[in-house]
Amino acid sequence: MEAAQPLDGEPAARVLVAGATGYTGALAASLVWRHPRLELVGATSRGEAGERLDLLHPRHRVPVVLEELDLGGAENVDAAIVAYPHGAAAPLVAELRGLGCRVVDLSADFRLSDVPEYERWYGPHGAPALLEGAVYGLPELHREAIRDAELVANPGCYPTAALLALAPLAAAALIKDVVVDAKSGVSGAGRGGSEELSFVNVTENLSPYAVDGHRHTPELVQELGLLGHAGPVTFVPHLLPVDQGLLSSCYVTLAREVDSDELMALYGDRYDGEPFVELVDSPPGVRDVRDTNACRIHVALGPVRGRAMAFAAIDNLWKGASGQAIQNLNLMLGLDETEGLT
Amino acid sequence: MEAAQPLDGEPAARVLVAGATGYTGALAASLVWRHPRLELVGATSRGEAGERLDLLHPRHRVPVVLEELDLGGAENVDAAIVAYPHGAAAPLVAELRGLGCRVVDLSADFRLSDVPEYERWYGPHGAPALLEGAVYGLPELHREAIRDAELVANPGCYPTAALLALAPLAAAALIKDVVVDAKSGVSGAGRGGSEELSFVNVTENLSPYAVDGHRHTPELVQELGLLGHAGPVTFVPHLLPVDQGLLSSCYVTLAREVDSDELMALYGDRYDGEPFVELVDSPPGVRDVRDTNACRIHVALGPVRGRAMAFAAIDNLWKGASGQAIQNLNLMLGLDETEGLT
Amino acid sequence: MEAAQPLDGEPAARVLVAGATGYTGALAASLVWRHPRLELVGATSRGEAGERLDLLHPRHRVPVVLEELDLGGAENVDAAIVAYPHGAAAPLVAELRGLGCRVVDLSADFRLSDVPEYERWYGPHGAPALLEGAVYGLPELHREAIRDAELVANPGCYPTAALLALAPLAAAALIKDVVVDAKSGVSGAGRGGSEELSFVNVTENLSPYAVDGHRHTPELVQELGLLGHAGPVTFVPHLLPVDQGLLSSCYVTLAREVDSDELMALYGDRYDGEPFVELVDSPPGVRDVRDTNACRIHVALGPVRGRAMAFAAIDNLWKGASGQAIQNLNLMLGLDETEGLT
Amino acid sequence: MEAAQPLDGEPAARVLVAGATGYTGALAASLVWRHPRLELVGATSRGEAGERLDLLHPRHRVPVVLEELDLGGAENVDAAIVAYPHGAAAPLVAELRGLGCRVVDLSADFRLSDVPEYERWYGPHGAPALLEGAVYGLPELHREAIRDAELVANPGCYPTAALLALAPLAAAALIKDVVVDAKSGVSGAGRGGSEELSFVNVTENLSPYAVDGHRHTPELVQELGLLGHAGPVTFVPHLLPVDQGLLSSCYVTLAREVDSDELMALYGDRYDGEPFVELVDSPPGVRDVRDTNACRIHVALGPVRGRAMAFAAIDNLWKGASGQAIQNLNLMLGLDETEGLT
Repeated sequence: MEAAQPLDGEPAARVLVAGATGYTGALAASLVWRHPRLELVGATSRGEAGERLDLLHPRHRVPVVLEELDLGGAENVDAAIVAYPHGAAAPLVAELRGLGCRVVDLSADFRLSDVPEYERWYGPHGAPALLEGAVYGLPELHREAIRDAELVANPGCYPTAALLALAPLAAAALIKDVVVDAKSGVSGAGRGGSEELSFVNVTENLSPYAVDGHRHTPELVQELGLLGHAGPVTFVPHLLPVDQGLLSSCYVTLAREVDSDELMALYGDRYDGEPFVELVDSPPGVRDVRDTNACRIHVALGPVRGRAMAFAAIDNLWKGASGQAIQNLNLMLGLDETEGLT
Repeated sequence: MEAAQPLDGEPAARVLVAGATGYTGALAASLVWRHPRLELVGATSRGEAGERLDLLHPRHRVPVVLEELDLGGAENVDAAIVAYPHGAAAPLVAELRGLGCRVVDLSADFRLSDVPEYERWYGPHGAPALLEGAVYGLPELHREAIRDAELVANPGCYPTAALLALAPLAAAALIKDVVVDAKSGVSGAGRGGSEELSFVNVTENLSPYAVDGHRHTPELVQELGLLGHAGPVTFVPHLLPVDQGLLSSCYVTLAREVDSDELMALYGDRYDGEPFVELVDSPPGVRDVRDTNACRIHVALGPVRGRAMAFAAIDNLWKGASGQAIQNLNLMLGLDETEGLT
Repeated sequence: MEAAQPLDGEPAARVLVAGATGYTGALAASLVWRHPRLELVGATSRGEAGERLDLLHPRHRVPVVLEELDLGGAENVDAAIVAYPHGAAAPLVAELRGLGCRVVDLSADFRLSDVPEYERWYGPHGAPALLEGAVYGLPELHREAIRDAELVANPGCYPTAALLALAPLAAAALIKDVVVDAKSGVSGAGRGGSEELSFVNVTENLSPYAVDGHRHTPELVQELGLLGHAGPVTFVPHLLPVDQGLLSSCYVTLAREVDSDELMALYGDRYDGEPFVELVDSPPGVRDVRDTNACRIHVALGPVRGRAMAFAAIDNLWKGASGQAIQNLNLMLGLDETEGLT
Repeated sequence: MEAAQPLDGEPAARVLVAGATGYTGALAASLVWRHPRLELVGATSRGEAGERLDLLHPRHRVPVVLEELDLGGAENVDAAIVAYPHGAAAPLVAELRGLGCRVVDLSADFRLSDVPEYERWYGPHGAPALLEGAVYGLPELHREAIRDAELVANPGCYPTAALLALAPLAAAALIKDVVVDAKSGVSGAGRGGSEELSFVNVTENLSPYAVDGHRHTPELVQELGLLGHAGPVTFVPHLLPVDQGLLSSCYVTLAREVDSDELMALYGDRYDGEPFVELVDSPPGVRDVRDTNACRIHVALGPVRGRAMAFAAIDNLWKGASGQAIQNLNLMLGLDETEGLT
């Protein structure tokens, strides 16, 4: 691998990115590469080792050669970001944890504390023993636990936006019922060719999918439950003709009457000082947050009495995946949470 | 104007399209031009008279010169499609009705039977006396009345999709609460430059708008009310980066438990024989209906008990505007409802 | 197969579409299905037999079930449109010709009269004996031969636009040198998933490809040669972020001084009466011809002395493939050339 | 204006951005704002003073309030980037120069040394006396002069890409004839609504424009002339359905035979050490350079003898405008040329 970016003094951590060829892994490698306090000590690929990352993903301009994973020399790895598919991640995470590495895992493998629920959606779990120590990596909900964690399960892109949109209401026990109509850009489905994701099928199109149940639903239910909302969640994703960007439109039947001032105060208080949450006065567009780690939220009482609406826009690859991974890593390493992300 | 398309014998009607330069007016002119039983006797423009329609809208290839409106020779006009802006349409419609022309009006001016409600959203009404005779032109709800009508108010694009998605549930008194999350392509906002609708602002973007109330809501409420649903409707539109296409995702809290068979039967019975409603087994994409007058509907009980979901996709310029106008005109003239639309 | 569209009396031919699942085959099946004088007697698929065509390609709304190819009952097939990949087409064409069927072949297999040249680009030729009787199916160049042909090789999309742009100049021996900078929508690359054609890779992108030689070049050279231009052709294609549409920008170093009147007259004379060639006064956009069989051409003397420029826009799936196949079939069957195409 | 980004010590210059509401002005303000050595002392707008820049251009996240231009307090302005329309820029530039400010002007007003040529394309020149001291701001051609300049005319987006593609050939006197077929994203046409640039007109479209002469041609001719190419240039731009990105495909008739090694050496030598020129082995896509100041160039001898082809991709807003302005400013201020641009 070539010389890395110049750092501000000694690196806070030497970081491995495992699975750096997909959209999220490549962006994670790029963010580590550019991070003023982290050193990218390796970027691995199972299928494309030997290729240059900057040929696969020109925009990131990370001039490193992808390597086969070899944990033999892992004594010089302090932390790892794992961007493996669901199921394949767990064994690698277990191995890395066994070597003492801190890990942020981008897969779903450690997001759900309930193993049967996990296995219903994703198949057999490869390392259930690690679940107890894993922290759900949404800093706005679990910041202190993330600081102390050695294994962080990075949330799904849909849950990230929906939870940030709904957390203040859930925490105030205001959600009687909720519909989350979510729309995501195509990069959320990962790299690799499939006819469904071909340009011809996606352009000038829009369609709902997984209407009978999407595997991000249990994350939403689990985390809203921890915040105090016990009920079910109606969640329907749609495939958008955009590359990056995700919007969650959340429609809440309120548990009691709330006026606009109270609603604004709930959100203002909860997100006061949050570096990546932007409360805005008008509905956000996904372009507003493209290539940033921001989550823009607009909340309003709609014209229908008893219904609040919250709209949250993120870049699915940043706050919905790799940007959030860096945010988590910063917290785990005691760095400023925003470092390398602005 | 040049010679029209060859007709199958005598035309059933000589049709004027007033306001033929916008997206809906130009498509209406094109559909009349190609219609085997209609003769396009004029296409007018307030701002672009003298120009050729096929230069303004090349794809339609309608080689007619736009004219100033002049009702002096209106004795040879049997019917008119009016594609004027809201407010400007009513006086022209009144004049055309005074001359005995049958009219399909694409504006909102005759959609709402409640004048104060109309005026709240659109300003002073220019011809309230005509409201009593006007029929809301959604054939799937009002076919017989349309056959007998001399003035048909063509529905808005959003209400068209949402009403077709929800009508079977509303008629069965099954809607306790409903959220309509709608997404429309840019042509729904009409022709003409505005920065908001520029390519740079729209591409790779998506945003909700009019979240505090959109003027298509009262149409939805009025028509669902006629079907038997008395309550409010939460309706939020979103601007999509597509040119043509509209999807309504409707989330219904059911008034009572329903099983899947009953749900399917409700929709199957209601839309049996409907030429333009397509019930499909999986969620529709807006590309599936592009440049057609079809409305594709997928209905399902979601994984959350007590909630049904209905997704309806249309082309906002066809079934959401000009295609439906032709469908209405066919009915008013005693022609086959599908003529010129397949 | 279900009942076909009603025909105007007896069909002029019973037509098989072999390979109806790709973009061009499916459009060919749709155009035959809707054609007032043709009967679609079968639509075959090598990989997706048993599936409904209207599920694979909803927009076409052709309610037929795809079949395995079985030429046992081919006595009721008068003509076939073959939409097989290059190389795979030739043996099937040979078989169909052996049964007496007229054939329009969408592949490159019978476009090049020079077998070694063919084999250089496409590999071994499967039926060279048929080449002598094959006619290059660009009606504007070879109309009379097509009328008499039993095997027509439908041109490539790039050559179609470039040849129509350049033919008048070539025929007048005015081309000293020529550069064709062509841009095509993604459907030109065919259906099926590949990462290169994924939405994420194509949107907000544009790139040249095959700059060291594209296999459509020999078609261009062959046909320009027949018209009288003996020299080489610089041809470079670019991949556009559009689904359908192709533009050829042709820059000609003129063999002698020409004034604008002479240039216009050359094009006007050559294309006078051509039903699908539209000479226009300003540069065409590919949207102008979307979903039509038209080729729009704008020709001009540029500001640089001695250089003419011709821009030709087509829909790569229509005039660049399946629309032109129907045009050819109409000619072969003695029908009006435009039937089923307007 | 709110507190600016923290700087690395004293700012090297206090910079005013005049005309910060368009795409290029807003990006320039953002780049100054984020620049480690520059201080943004003001961002002005003629029509939108009082508005927040981060509401107009959310993605840039520059939390400053736009001001009316007021040069009364200009003693604290060391340098200015002027993003006014052609014609309007010259008087302001003259005023700023009178106050001793260094200026980078994004308009065309000081690009052409030949006043009549300027006036042929842009109308009367507002400050011809300043032309003599103005330097054409393409660092790869005029780096040393830019270092010493107090007024730099930032090049047009099209000339930037075409000149970088062609400079090595021009300097080696290898261009006998040249065609530049250029394709630009919509942001190149500037902000503001016009129907031509509306999403509906641009999506799924592509068209040439200004085929009878584009005002960027004289820049190309002037600069190629300085490099040694005396002849005319055929330049045709096309409007692409992308927001940011520009590709120039250049077709050169060589003045003498050149082999591939010589060609590669010409480019390799010329661009050795250039921080923003990337020579690549395969044709570049505009996505590869999006949101960067890079120019990616692929040069090749095509299959036609005597013809070289060079393809250059840039982001029209970065290397084609505001990124290059910062590059120029860095040079003028004696800073590292890449500062604030990586």
